[in-house]
Amino acid sequence: MTDKPIRRIGIIGTGVIGASWTSLFLAKGLQVVATDVAPNAETALRKFVEKAWPALERLGLSPGASQSNLKFTPALAQAVAGVDLVQENGPERIDFKKKLYGQLDELLPPDVIVASSSSGLTMSEIQSGAASHPERCVIAHPFNPPHLIPLVEIVGGAKTSEATIQRAAEFYTSIGQRTVQLNKEVPGHVANRLQAALAREVYHLVADGIVSAADVDTALCWGPGLRWGIMGNMMINHLGGGPGGIEHFFQQFTGPMTAWWKVLGSPVLTPEVQKKLIDSVHAEVGSRTIEELEAERDEILLGLLELRTKRPQTAAPRPLAAAE
Amino acid sequence: MTDKPIRRIGIIGTGVIGASWTSLFLAKGLQVVATDVAPNAETALRKFVEKAWPALERLGLSPGASQSNLKFTPALAQAVAGVDLVQENGPERIDFKKKLYGQLDELLPPDVIVASSSSGLTMSEIQSGAASHPERCVIAHPFNPPHLIPLVEIVGGAKTSEATIQRAAEFYTSIGQRTVQLNKEVPGHVANRLQAALAREVYHLVADGIVSAADVDTALCWGPGLRWGIMGNMMINHLGGGPGGIEHFFQQFTGPMTAWWKVLGSPVLTPEVQKKLIDSVHAEVGSRTIEELEAERDEILLGLLELRTKRPQTAAPRPLAAAE
Repeated sequence: MTDKPIRRIGIIGTGVIGASWTSLFLAKGLQVVATDVAPNAETALRKFVEKAWPALERLGLSPGASQSNLKFTPALAQAVAGVDLVQENGPERIDFKKKLYGQLDELLPPDVIVASSSSGLTMSEIQSGAASHPERCVIAHPFNPPHLIPLVEIVGGAKTSEATIQRAAEFYTSIGQRTVQLNKEVPGHVANRLQAALAREVYHLVADGIVSAADVDTALCWGPGLRWGIMGNMMINHLGGGPGGIEHFFQQFTGPMTAWWKVLGSPVLTPEVQKKLIDSVHAEVGSRTIEELEAERDEILLGLLELRTKRPQTAAPRPLAAAE
Repeated sequence: MTDKPIRRIGIIGTGVIGASWTSLFLAKGLQVVATDVAPNAETALRKFVEKAWPALERLGLSPGASQSNLKFTPALAQAVAGVDLVQENGPERIDFKKKLYGQLDELLPPDVIVASSSSGLTMSEIQSGAASHPERCVIAHPFNPPHLIPLVEIVGGAKTSEATIQRAAEFYTSIGQRTVQLNKEVPGHVANRLQAALAREVYHLVADGIVSAADVDTALCWGPGLRWGIMGNMMINHLGGGPGGIEHFFQQFTGPMTAWWKVLGSPVLTPEVQKKLIDSVHAEVGSRTIEELEAERDEILLGLLELRTKRPQTAAPRPLAAAE
């Protein structure tokens, strides 16, 4: 591998995820070359970045950050020429990805990382398309939208090198993202599994008529959810044990926790169940538009991110450690 | 029932939950009479309230709020004389509660609400001890600690009157808490079930060696958790569907969601699994003390609550609606 700083990013696919990555990288002072075959892709991308910019300004731009550092080309080879890292956000079809990784394998020198935003495919499958240099391919899965939510889940495939994983983790960390490393490839990585686990019980409680959508949302966002944007479950358990910490927590709560697990629901999302959930959401939403609700969500999210980061300590990309 | 304002609260049991309720009620300008049979209960209670007070000041005291509005007596009959509502936080033993509710049934006029903080027992069981007036007994389950976390889960037993449920909901809402109403008695009410559903997958991922405690915590609190303190799951799904809202969300995500449900884990909390979880938490915690971590958690929590409530609109107890 290499200690070469990562300064120029190739973005493949400029849908919602690719456009959000683009906004983030630009805000961190990086050069971005984006490509997408969709008609009007460039216009839509530049519009997305422009709309995202005020939030990024509020969170703190890095030196040199500018929307003018964005180039767009419909040609893949042109987009990835001279980049240090590719962030790939293509369609979630294994045949498509394998072919794309074959092309990238031929186009790119071996010290360029190819990072996939894939949530549904494994890197072991994807990198089988890259005959020469599968070791530089890695999953770097964002939590949408990455320009606002800092999580990046990093996991290699069978042929990914440890150096690639470390270099990717250092890169995303250096621009202020929060990375986690999975030791195994599992469906949904971590965050989507946590969401799915929670949603299952939420749907059960509403589908079973125990509470309305409005009430289950209140229970979450004025109850345990208030802490889940501050600390994770394990740390909260540690504090939930009082002075005895996590040991005391398990002594005290293994019984009730295990009992609750036995009665959690397993809803089946039939059309009827979906209709019940949808109707209850509409009763909760009332006349509020999606735009209004999005604005409310993002305003508080920005405030919470400011609270948690205080000064923008991670604003400037720092040189990669020479440790590799 | 009655339209009588609720101004004077009897607190039975001044452990962590009872002491936190006491602090909240005092901050809302109410009179509190507390009772507990434990030695030193009064000293511990007054110390708790004093320690909680700065946070309550920051969130906004109501007119007349004062720690001097707290009276303590070890005698149950004296504690509940003249109160408008009893908040009961006794031990979670059904024989104890039934006996206690029998005593309260005799001591209290029928227009006094008896609200239980119980998380583990149902009101149908508990109120069977109250021969004359089971209809004024209701579960009002806080999320610990109620002086910081606003959620109150309200659910009646088989004999609880609708008027009691409505009057309780109005009371807790009037002092700024966020209430949800359960249409059925279920183990763990709502919030504990949501926590249990999430924790199950968290423990699975750590126990199975997929991620460390530190990383699963990062994935939650820098990922989906960031939104769960802002909006609930159903509303987030609605916005996750883009312009198509909740309908589009289910069209798009029923497939992956259902697939993830099939692979979520079902850990068994054997001593070995607990040890693995505990060790991983200690690696995450490092040298940070529980006090330091608590202070960090509560500082951000207060900031988030300020963000979400902006002006303290709910600071003054408003007269109960005359609608009943």
